[in-house]
Amino acid sequence: MTTAPLKIGFIGLGIMGAPMAGHLLKAGHQLYVYTHGKVPEAIATSTATQCLDAKGVAQRADIIITMVPDTPDVAEALFGDTGVAKGLTAGKVVVDMSSISPVDTKQFARKIEALGCDYLDAPVSGGDVGARNAALSIMVGGKAEVFERIRPVFELMGKNITRVGGHGDGQTCKVANQIVVALTINAVAEGLLFAAKAGADPAKVRSALMGGLATSRILDILGERMINRCFDPGFRIALHQKDLNLALGAARSLGLALPATSNAQQLFSACVAQGGGAWDHSGMVRALERLSNFEIGQAAN
Amino acid sequence: MTTAPLKIGFIGLGIMGAPMAGHLLKAGHQLYVYTHGKVPEAIATSTATQCLDAKGVAQRADIIITMVPDTPDVAEALFGDTGVAKGLTAGKVVVDMSSISPVDTKQFARKIEALGCDYLDAPVSGGDVGARNAALSIMVGGKAEVFERIRPVFELMGKNITRVGGHGDGQTCKVANQIVVALTINAVAEGLLFAAKAGADPAKVRSALMGGLATSRILDILGERMINRCFDPGFRIALHQKDLNLALGAARSLGLALPATSNAQQLFSACVAQGGGAWDHSGMVRALERLSNFEIGQAAN
Repeated sequence: MTTAPLKIGFIGLGIMGAPMAGHLLKAGHQLYVYTHGKVPEAIATSTATQCLDAKGVAQRADIIITMVPDTPDVAEALFGDTGVAKGLTAGKVVVDMSSISPVDTKQFARKIEALGCDYLDAPVSGGDVGARNAALSIMVGGKAEVFERIRPVFELMGKNITRVGGHGDGQTCKVANQIVVALTINAVAEGLLFAAKAGADPAKVRSALMGGLATSRILDILGERMINRCFDPGFRIALHQKDLNLALGAARSLGLALPATSNAQQLFSACVAQGGGAWDHSGMVRALERLSNFEIGQAAN
Repeated sequence: MTTAPLKIGFIGLGIMGAPMAGHLLKAGHQLYVYTHGKVPEAIATSTATQCLDAKGVAQRADIIITMVPDTPDVAEALFGDTGVAKGLTAGKVVVDMSSISPVDTKQFARKIEALGCDYLDAPVSGGDVGARNAALSIMVGGKAEVFERIRPVFELMGKNITRVGGHGDGQTCKVANQIVVALTINAVAEGLLFAAKAGADPAKVRSALMGGLATSRILDILGERMINRCFDPGFRIALHQKDLNLALGAARSLGLALPATSNAQQLFSACVAQGGGAWDHSGMVRALERLSNFEIGQAAN
């Protein structure tokens, strides 16, 4: 690191947060951490300062990152009795890297700014592999000058870092991403299942479609998983369900109808009913297969 | 052309068939043509022989290509009172390049083979631009040796030429392509519409999504059309509706449920209700916009 060490707070040291915090430590920054449950060994034995609560983190650090599972967890971490807001003083920056509601995010940002602090929403994609390899995509909402100030910190954790717009726009972008991904999985699943049921070789159909207008990274990578019956995650259906729940909840509060998103969520629920919450999201095809009592790879008649 | 001229029949000289037949003429082949209505000027004034009916074409040509709108049109051209079957003698090849039912195609192939002839289904994608530029993708079903025999003829009309499998598999591949394309359009439309309604800039969201798992040619090209409000075809909604009708009809006869395909067809119908049958298929977004009384590009509140 060429710049002086920063005082960075990190709240939430789960499967994503722990490796992300690790990259900040490795870069020489002073970390102040708090997590529900036990602090992971690698961080407990590092130079990081363990705090009793989120308030304690906010009192000591200048930049406070949250990386927790869902909207209520961020609300609790920021505005609970022992939350970040209780420990903030003017001039600090709160950076929420969790994937949560874009609508609630706008309220959170207003409340943090009312304390004389700055706020960025900066959800990520790329999963635990991206977190470990410091290769996350980071989609940021908030003021441009605050984004530029925090950018060097983002660059320690990710590669494709975009400021999408103002408060909430990072979360909105993440939700839009998850909508497009889920529905493109549905597209590939119905197309390949049709081909197989009609008696064609789905692998040859997938190859013939690549290169044309139907081409997508999902046809390429997840289409191959559907054909090869490889449903180890990858990205778990239970997590994608959480993201579509954000999409549908936000859409409801915005007054927006998303019929195909709603349908895709039902297919994920059908997977969970088959015990598939931990399948890779390409496993959505199994809900369609169950519906028609036919599997890709089965001989059609 | 380095090989001897072939005697090729061409039935159906519409917006697709006329330029395709033109490429065969240009290559020096002897053409025997028949079409409903008037033979286009360029072909009428060429060396092509105009026949009174499809039977007359089949009597004179060794390879008989059909390029007509829909399944009943192929049935009529092949098996009508003055159809191809009435004029065939053993050893000839029937090549149906129309986009029609894969289920009916298998029957057509059996009936043509019973006459001692060969049959290929060889639907195309790429539209009238692809037809004019001899750049069509051609998806072929039928015997490998017949495919190899006809391949030089396909190469005069297309670029990406794939034998997918046996009889009907070319049509199956084309239908699968149209399913994947329609549902990926739906994916991009719901994702960008969500982003816009939540107050983010859909163009920035589209850029942020490109390069990640959500990447597709449709996000790239048709996503841009949705943002720029450019709905001139391209590929018309009315034609895509015909293709999804094939998908849903075949799925019904195969005993296969395609919930998202069914939903996409309803969105196309909603476009037609707005007078949008001639819009580019990216115009599907307008049905979703009408549903929620909000347009991409409109300021969100």
